[in-house]
Amino acid sequence: MKLPIGFQAAGVRAGIKPSGKPDLALLVGEGPLAWALASTENLVRAPCVVRNRARAASDQPVRALLVNAGNANCATGDVGVWDNEDMAAAAASGLKLERPQDVLTGSTGVIGRRLPLDAVKRGVPLAVAALSDEVAPFAEAILTTDLVPKTIEVRLHGGARVVGVAKGSGMIHPNMATMFAFVLTDAIVEQSWLRATWARIVRRTFNQLTVDGDTSTNDMAIVLASNRLRAEADEVAAALESVAADLARAIARDGEGATSLLTVKVRGGRNEADAMAAAKGVAASSLVKAAVHGRDPNWGRILSSVGQSGAVADLGAVTVMVQGTEVYRGQPLEFDAAELSQAMRSPDVLVEVDLAAGAAEGEAWGCDLSADYVKINALYTT
Amino acid sequence: MKLPIGFQAAGVRAGIKPSGKPDLALLVGEGPLAWALASTENLVRAPCVVRNRARAASDQPVRALLVNAGNANCATGDVGVWDNEDMAAAAASGLKLERPQDVLTGSTGVIGRRLPLDAVKRGVPLAVAALSDEVAPFAEAILTTDLVPKTIEVRLHGGARVVGVAKGSGMIHPNMATMFAFVLTDAIVEQSWLRATWARIVRRTFNQLTVDGDTSTNDMAIVLASNRLRAEADEVAAALESVAADLARAIARDGEGATSLLTVKVRGGRNEADAMAAAKGVAASSLVKAAVHGRDPNWGRILSSVGQSGAVADLGAVTVMVQGTEVYRGQPLEFDAAELSQAMRSPDVLVEVDLAAGAAEGEAWGCDLSADYVKINALYTT
Repeated sequence: MKLPIGFQAAGVRAGIKPSGKPDLALLVGEGPLAWALASTENLVRAPCVVRNRARAASDQPVRALLVNAGNANCATGDVGVWDNEDMAAAAASGLKLERPQDVLTGSTGVIGRRLPLDAVKRGVPLAVAALSDEVAPFAEAILTTDLVPKTIEVRLHGGARVVGVAKGSGMIHPNMATMFAFVLTDAIVEQSWLRATWARIVRRTFNQLTVDGDTSTNDMAIVLASNRLRAEADEVAAALESVAADLARAIARDGEGATSLLTVKVRGGRNEADAMAAAKGVAASSLVKAAVHGRDPNWGRILSSVGQSGAVADLGAVTVMVQGTEVYRGQPLEFDAAELSQAMRSPDVLVEVDLAAGAAEGEAWGCDLSADYVKINALYTT
Repeated sequence: MKLPIGFQAAGVRAGIKPSGKPDLALLVGEGPLAWALASTENLVRAPCVVRNRARAASDQPVRALLVNAGNANCATGDVGVWDNEDMAAAAASGLKLERPQDVLTGSTGVIGRRLPLDAVKRGVPLAVAALSDEVAPFAEAILTTDLVPKTIEVRLHGGARVVGVAKGSGMIHPNMATMFAFVLTDAIVEQSWLRATWARIVRRTFNQLTVDGDTSTNDMAIVLASNRLRAEADEVAAALESVAADLARAIARDGEGATSLLTVKVRGGRNEADAMAAAKGVAASSLVKAAVHGRDPNWGRILSSVGQSGAVADLGAVTVMVQGTEVYRGQPLEFDAAELSQAMRSPDVLVEVDLAAGAAEGEAWGCDLSADYVKINALYTT
């Protein structure tokens, strides 16, 4: 897959990951890049998150993004703040950019350990030398314990493209499931439009994604635009949302220990916030997730998690469907449980709920809860 | 253990549970009982919850409580509402009470299946005949998949007592983890004082208890007072809170698949709400729970879950202790990980966090997340 016009990228082995796998990813705009950031709401935030948020508070474009995997540079005290600044400075220097503040940073991996800055500094020239129009090396170098790289492309009328790259929800010693998503386009967009649009899209996509309910200290979703090709704003927005939703699904499907992507579609909501809350509530329920793992069309847990979400529902008319089979309509329905359980033995499990309280819709994505999730996160000692 | 003065109770086999174990529990006051109710905030509520809440809206005392296990009588449509009324009427008839509204009801077990009302009606006379001053039969008959009955007693100066009985967080085909707690006292208390006090206590005890984050449709915590013996109001309040906290801990310890009780104590909060939110956030985190199961003193996950809770903290001064060993103070500390991991191989794991933002304290209780939790909740098909 090729990057959109106006971008170059690279991924190299800088020696941050003990495994020796690629761990330093560089993305560069040939000119100024319009951009927008959504980041973790966790009050414990890594320096890269704090710095990028401060950078977003200005209305200035950026030129580059340097991401390392293998070390989250989080909870490392004041030295972590300076290491993060040095990381941006190293990239600016390597790219011959005058202002380090034109470089965004991202770190993911182990927390509470100092960033191996020497490795980063050695890696930057390698990355600069390796810059190309290929997506794959960048996509590989941001991974932690992900099983697969996650990239997606959408083409617009007129030739512009939207390309998305993400990582998550792997875990690194001693952990947490950082999610990064970078979405790039060569479509011409206004900075202010991009910010408003991205906030709306993230709310409907990445913020409707749940693997284990834990929000990382380093989560970021960034959109960058090189402003090269004309495109309809509506079409750009739709493509950005499509790419963001696909990345969110890819992250959920690759959730720790997951064997199925769980998609929850809610309709009949009083408003969109209600429908989205109900969808996310079902996707986040440990009991629902365990039932999906057990291939159990457990409408009781689904209904209870809808109730727990606070979404308004007409309980006498609520319907629940699992894999397209209606199992509840105001009261339990007869269905062939063995057949439906068999249908749930799929990498894609779909739960649909009609709240019967309005016309709004919402969607959320998660995964099943397996004994492997517990093993990955428990059978291990610092 | 004996009931407080002014109460009688029984537990009998009514044939509701397929296992044939005791499944119908009756509690009777010799005179009017002052009472207060806290119940699930889940918007999907069983008829027993709806009816008891309506009953609480009046300021009238009650006389009796009939609880069945083995069937939650939830999501059973309109017929479930009438079955619940009939259950109260059967108890009133058996006890020769004029008003069925003087009987509270509780149901726990499988949802979406009609309550076997004939079994309840056959069981009530057996229960009436078996009434005694013993706690044990009642405590046993409210259990579902709990491993152990949960009872606790506190004696006050002057002879009054507080006795608590609880069930949870067992699961019944096709499930959910209903929690019931009934706390009885023979102390003389004002109805209005009891309500205000109970609301405060439940907020600090049962509402700080988390097993898997899923709130059941049938959860209730009820306090009942027979008003026989004089006692200091402060002492009664302290005893009620002590009993409620002990029951909450007993429920967490008996959580599905749990091997350890996780106690999280937070101090240094800006206010009590912050401290309680931080404590509950840590106790509820899947990543923390898995780390506790793996005996991993994982301060990173603890810190991240504090951040996710929204509690204000001075991140440069936050301290984290695990089993009494300080592992983080503004930055990671050196500690003997193997020794601390060994210390965590205990039925009691204590996490302490100082937010360094004030003087308020909060506490929460949970349990570890084990592969057995997943097995119990997944390896099973309707």
